[in-house]
Parts: sequence; C-alpha cells; structure tokens
Amino acid sequence: MAKEKKLVEAVTSMEEDFTQWYTDVVKKAELMDYSSIKGCMIFKPNGYAIWENIQKQMDARFKAIGVENVYMPMFIPESLLDKEKDHVEGFAPEVAWVTQGGAETLPERLCVRPTSETLFCDLYANIVQSYRDLPKVYNQWCSVVRWEKTTRPFLRSSEFLWQEGHTAHATAEEAEEWTVRMLNVYADFCEEVLAIPMVKGRKTDKEKFAGAMATYSIEALMHDGKALQSGTSHNFGDGFARAFEIQYTDKENRLQYVHQTSWGVSTRLIGAIIMVHGDDSGLVLPPRIAPVQVMVIPIQQQKEGVLDQALKVRDTLAEAFRVKIDDSAKTPGWKFAEQEIRGIPVRVELGPKDIEKGECVVVRRDTREKIVVPLSELNTRMAEILETMQADMLGRAKAFLASHISDAHDYAEFRQAAAEKPGFIRAMWCGEEACELKIKEDTTVTSRCMPFGDQEQIAQTCVCCGKPAHKLVYWGKAY
Amino acid sequence: MAKEKKLVEAVTSMEEDFTQWYTDVVKKAELMDYSSIKGCMIFKPNGYAIWENIQKQMDARFKAIGVENVYMPMFIPESLLDKEKDHVEGFAPEVAWVTQGGAETLPERLCVRPTSETLFCDLYANIVQSYRDLPKVYNQWCSVVRWEKTTRPFLRSSEFLWQEGHTAHATAEEAEEWTVRMLNVYADFCEEVLAIPMVKGRKTDKEKFAGAMATYSIEALMHDGKALQSGTSHNFGDGFARAFEIQYTDKENRLQYVHQTSWGVSTRLIGAIIMVHGDDSGLVLPPRIAPVQVMVIPIQQQKEGVLDQALKVRDTLAEAFRVKIDDSAKTPGWKFAEQEIRGIPVRVELGPKDIEKGECVVVRRDTREKIVVPLSELNTRMAEILETMQADMLGRAKAFLASHISDAHDYAEFRQAAAEKPGFIRAMWCGEEACELKIKEDTTVTSRCMPFGDQEQIAQTCVCCGKPAHKLVYWGKAY
Repeated sequence: MAKEKKLVEAVTSMEEDFTQWYTDVVKKAELMDYSSIKGCMIFKPNGYAIWENIQKQMDARFKAIGVENVYMPMFIPESLLDKEKDHVEGFAPEVAWVTQGGAETLPERLCVRPTSETLFCDLYANIVQSYRDLPKVYNQWCSVVRWEKTTRPFLRSSEFLWQEGHTAHATAEEAEEWTVRMLNVYADFCEEVLAIPMVKGRKTDKEKFAGAMATYSIEALMHDGKALQSGTSHNFGDGFARAFEIQYTDKENRLQYVHQTSWGVSTRLIGAIIMVHGDDSGLVLPPRIAPVQVMVIPIQQQKEGVLDQALKVRDTLAEAFRVKIDDSAKTPGWKFAEQEIRGIPVRVELGPKDIEKGECVVVRRDTREKIVVPLSELNTRMAEILETMQADMLGRAKAFLASHISDAHDYAEFRQAAAEKPGFIRAMWCGEEACELKIKEDTTVTSRCMPFGDQEQIAQTCVCCGKPAHKLVYWGKAY
Repeated sequence: MAKEKKLVEAVTSMEEDFTQWYTDVVKKAELMDYSSIKGCMIFKPNGYAIWENIQKQMDARFKAIGVENVYMPMFIPESLLDKEKDHVEGFAPEVAWVTQGGAETLPERLCVRPTSETLFCDLYANIVQSYRDLPKVYNQWCSVVRWEKTTRPFLRSSEFLWQEGHTAHATAEEAEEWTVRMLNVYADFCEEVLAIPMVKGRKTDKEKFAGAMATYSIEALMHDGKALQSGTSHNFGDGFARAFEIQYTDKENRLQYVHQTSWGVSTRLIGAIIMVHGDDSGLVLPPRIAPVQVMVIPIQQQKEGVLDQALKVRDTLAEAFRVKIDDSAKTPGWKFAEQEIRGIPVRVELGPKDIEKGECVVVRRDTREKIVVPLSELNTRMAEILETMQADMLGRAKAFLASHISDAHDYAEFRQAAAEKPGFIRAMWCGEEACELKIKEDTTVTSRCMPFGDQEQIAQTCVCCGKPAHKLVYWGKAY
C-alpha cells in the first residue's frame, strides 16, 4: 500500500493549492511535458489522444454542415500581415519571425502564423469571382504560435494546436448567421461531448478579436471559480474584404465585397476538461471523450483462469467500447490509483470470486460507485453506466455553474461578490470602456460576455458609474 | 459541348508534356494552389481530403501495432540540432531560422523543424530510465519545413505535411526489426489502399538519411518511367543515443544505450497517386482512397421525378459509400468532365429512361466501362464494381512496373537502358560511391535501392567499374 499512497498523494489537493493541483494532474496523468524550447509544450500520448478525440468528433460536426478542410502555409509575409490595420496591431507584438532560410537572409520577414485570416483572405481574393463561388466555408487543423511570456499547460503556450475556420459570404446577414451558428456548434459539442455547460454571448469591444466587427465566445466556469474562454466566433463584416479586395459579382452583375467570419477552438478545451471535472485523485474524463473508456484490472491474476477470463472480458468490451487491460505485474491497488489519476471513466475489477459467480465489479471514476454486473450482460450494462456517468457529470457541472452566478445591483455588491464569491457576476454595464477598466483595476474582474437572449434588466444603472445601462454582462476572473 | 471540350482540353496530354500534364491535373482537379509564400503550397479541399483519408487509414494501421501519437514543438534550438554531427550537416543548409520573438531578438536561433529526431531524442533522454520504459513507439502527424529552391506540388515544397515515427528500443535486433516492419507497413498500405506496387530495399550509404546507420525505402514507378521515393525507414543504431545520452538500466542493472529508428511518409504519396493512375482526362483515384467514391449525375433532371429518384439513389449509396450528387445547373457532359478530371472512381448516370426500367448506368473512371445496374441491386453491385476497379488498378500498375524493369549486364547496356528504356534498371554494383557518382554524371540515373531478398547475381562484376560485385541495385531517374 505504501507505493499506492505515494502515487495518490503526489497530487496536491484542490483546496490547498488549485494551481499546483492542476500542474500535478497534467504531469501525473502524463498529458503534457515541458520541452527545451521556452513556452513550448510536448503533448504526450495521453494528452494527444484526448485532442484526437476532440478533433474527430468536432470535425464530423463541421463536415455535417458543409465545412471543407484545407491546409494553408504556416508562414505569413510581413506585407500580408500588415494589410489589415487592427489585425496587425493586435498580433505583431507576439509573433515569431523567420528571417533566414538556409544560409540566406530573407528579402522579407515571414511570421509564423499566429492565426491565418490574412492567408485565407489572400486565397479568397484569388478564387472568389462570382456569387456562384460563395459561400466559402474552409477550416484547418494546425498549430499556431504566439510568443507568450508566461505559459501554463493547455491554457497558454507559445505554440498550441487548434482549428481555425474562415468563411466568405455574399451578405452581411449570412455572415452573422454563420458566426452564431458556429458558436452554437461549439457550445453543443462542449455540453454533449465534454459535459461542460457554457455561457454564450458577445464580447465587449475591448475584448473582441483584432480586426473583428463582433466577437462571440463560450465561457466555462472552472472549479476554482475562474472563467475560461473556451471558443470564439468572429464576424468581420467586410473589413478584411475591403483591405484585401475580395469582391464578387452578384446576380445583377454588380461588384460587391464579401462578408467574412472566423472561428476557433484550441487545446485549451483540455484545460477546461481538467478543471471542470477533475478531483483530488486526478483527472476525470467524460466517457464520450475518454481515449480509454474502460480499464480491465484482474485481481489475483496469478491464479489460474483469472487472466484468461479478464482477456475475454476485454475482448467482449472491445466490441463496443475503447477498452484496455492492465495485466502488468503491479498490485491491483497501484493499478487503481493509476487508472484514477488518468481519469479513465470506469474500471472493471475481476477476481476469482467474481469469476465463480459469473460477474464483475464496475467502479465509476466520478462517484466511486461499485456496480456488480453479470458478465452475460456486460456490454448492455456498460453502455448504460457510461451514459449515466456522462449525464451525471454534465448535471454536476451545470449545478456548479448555476450555484456560482451572483447578481450585483450596485458597486458595493459587485466588489463584495468579486472578493468573496468565486464564479460569474451578472451586472449591468453602460457600454463605456472606462467602466471595464475601473472594474478590472479595482477587482481584477473582466467582462466575459453579454449573453444572448438574456435581455433581463437586473438594474437600471451601470454597476460601476451609475449611468443608465441596458447591457447585462457576465463578469469574472479569467484564465 | 463547346464548354465541356474546353474543360477537357485544358489538360495537356501525357505524351506531349508529362510535366505540364501533372501541373494541369493538380490545378484542374483543384488539389493544390500556389501561395504568396515562395515554395509553400495551399492544400485545397480536394487535395486535403485525400491526405485526410491517407492519415485515417494509415493511422489505424499504426495504432493496431502499438504506435502512440504525440505532438512535439515545431521549433528546435540550434544547440539541440547541433548535437548529432551528420544530422546537422545534412539539414542545417535547408532550414528556416526564427531569430525574433515579438520585438525581441532571441538569445538562440530556433529552426523550424525539418524533421524531429533531435526533439524526440531530448524527450527520450528524459523519460527513459529502465528497460521497463522500452520500447517507446511514438509518432506525430505534422508539417515540416525545408527551404527548397525548386518546388513542385506534392513532390517538393518548402513546407509539407507528413508523419514521423520515432522509436527507442532495448536492443539492436529489435530496432532493425522495427525499421523493416514499418517499411512493410508502408509498402502494404501503398499496395492495398493506393494500388501502387513498391520496390522495397536498402539505400546505399550515399543516399541514406543524415545520421542513419541504414535507410530503407519504398520506390514507386511513375507513368513517365521515373522513380519516386515514397517512404523511408531509418535504423539509427545507438548513434543518436550516444549523442543525446539516452540510456537505460537493463534487467541485470547495467547501463545501456537505446537503439532508435525513425520512419516517415508525406504528401508526396498524393503525387504518386496522380502519376501512377492518372490519364489524359485527369486524375484517377483508387476507390479505397477517394474522398468521393461515387458521383450521382441526373440526366434531364428538369423532368419530373428524375431529381427525386437521383436523390434517393444518393441516399441509398450513402449507406455504404462516400457519395455525392451533382444536381447543379450544368449540362451532364460538363458534369462528366468534372467528375473525370477530379478522378472520382465511378459516376452513376440516371435519366428518365433508366428510371422507367428501374436501373442506372454506372461508368468506371479508369476503363470508361458502362455497367447497367438494376436499382434494386445497387449497393451490392457497387461494392463489387469498386473492388474490381481497385484490383484492376493495382493489376495495371503492377504490369506497368514489371514491363519497365530492364537488366543491364555491362555499362554499354546500362547506358542504352538509361537513354532508351524508361523505368528501373537492375544492375550489379561494387559498393563504391565513385561508381554511383560516375553513373549519375553519365546518365542522370541514381541508385534507388538494394532490394530485400533479391540476392540474384545477374552478373559477376560492377556494371560501372568492372570489379567484382555482389550487390544488386535498382537504378532509376528520380523525382
């Protein structure tokens, strides 16, 4: 037992130090490692497999609505990045520049893409001529680079993996519709697959993307009460189209600018999974996204027939689930601790007595509930258990979110909530950036988003300056 | 018909100008486009979808034998690249260097990975301690950069997509076994999925990878008689392990160096598909790799019931195949030409008369054979047709390869073959680099590989210098 304790105790408790807990989980679950390049991370097999599952399932949702995948160069010539003023101002300070190719100095610096709006615009300017060419709905899965000073695994690193969708539409209405549509694709995916409920809404001008007319985001609440921006969708209007001269002839043969959008989610989502579902024993993965859903652990595997039966159970489960067997020489307790740290949704314990009775014990990672299941009903019952677990995890995350939203009607209430109540604060805002800046300075809280549909007027005046206010904002401390 | 002719005639004939034919196919099938960055290409939806299918099917083969996917940083510090002497000499002249991050000059240059041996070695040095940690069998799908002066779509570009596997093993035997195993995975994949037969063998020292002890390659024969190196697998012995100090303690508690391999295939494979199977009407995709396997084309679709029935046929086929319908306003002839240029394996023609008879006409892209199929048997027959087509394509490629191998017993024969017979030349070689260099200078032909198993002694002396020779080499003009 000494060794098992050591493994388990290596994870700092959330209560004690949430930041250290997070780092411990990332390390002990073998999700990621630091590399010898400052700010760049290594995705280890356990971490990358989660990203592969996110990719696979999200990509299927993209393709179902007509998104086409492409791959664009990773370099952007400086002159191309410069074309849209706000955009270059937003990104130039944090890009990596290639200045030499082989032994030669390049005639023009190339930046390693921090995002690829400019490349897609350059392409669309070449391939869009007529209304028949629209819409263009392209996406790419790739890595991007932003030279960050402080980094944290999955949350902020100099290089990260993401998808970036870029579209061109004939009309402003269609672009706006697409922007919101993709935000909903993200929110639905997070809720249905990652079991993470999202607050959806529009960013204030201060928080929007460099070059966008409007930015929408999904915001999740982490276990420490901080908000994590988990995906964004931008409506560019015709701003980039004018800068890059992306024009088409409409049905009446008039020259028009296209209207564009872009949208992205990144490996940050893995950070969200860790901080929404994890506990003091490590990672807890929702069954739908878990690379391994079931770990079969034989008990007293040296006894005759146990390993054979465990392998049979593994094979049966493999027909319907992502399953592995741990038949290493470690003790069962050690194997349990490893399965728990890695967040594998359930384990199947199978020993001589179970085999005698024709059953096994299924243990849920989230609740530790032990469920005795007849071997003859294993796959049917396993499907139920995993679905129930998925639903329960979403239910708990929803309850946590709901219980961590407080309303502030005046600045005193706001400051008290910011100091004492972890989570989102709902409060009215006049629309002035000055109030956002003051609130941030006073409380470190920032505006997260202005929720869709929620036109509720919880007060008549701005929570900060007291002037008339009509905008309800979700505020929070953010990652 | 004028328009259709225009579309078809836009592809130069192979006979006339093979290079131009290739460029035309890439462009007209909308596989790839040039970008504003010198040497970097844009993978358009039709091209990228082929790569996605290659990834998906090859990755499943990797996972079935225990390969784990990871993602490593795209940058390599200069000091890390410098650690293995041969390796850095091979790659330094063609890498892109990042020298600035944001506004700052970096303390050390970072190269954009041309390949990631050094990063994997750095990782393995950290995570391998004991024999229990071995083997490590990691792979990543990513893009790499090599600053090329002359570029051609899919065949050679400054940035390209690939996978690179990197392994560490306890023994030299295990590393050698893995090197050959992966070469066979590649060769089997190419034959079974891409319908491309490969010549497999070992590279001469002159042609091996920078830092490798031995390099094996698969070589395919293009329609113009030139060879395309389509995948490589390297055995590094313990060379990198010594440079990076990757050591483990064995069962007897002795410190040992690991033995390593690496292996990769790239988007070059798409170039091979084009040049092995394409014809004067455009691309011809083997059914197993085609992103769209069947295009349904309604005839006289304005007539009542035709479009409805065509949509039904599409839906039926969608149960078992990757299928699309072209219900655009273009003429059927135009649609046929587009389907042919894009290489979609079969089209289903469906008009009022066919519907009356309860049948449709399936047209194979490769042979143009028209097959009348009762609608009630569509999916069964379609499976047969696609499988037959796949097998026929492989059969033709094999016959082409077999008829384009000539034996040269002396230098006169060799020079004649090099001048007059497109394809591989089999000839004996003494093992001296001087002979390889002379042959290249005289004929532009290079050694492609020394085939496995083929210990045939077609002559007793080196085809070039006349000294005793025991090595049979496949020679060819290479891309």
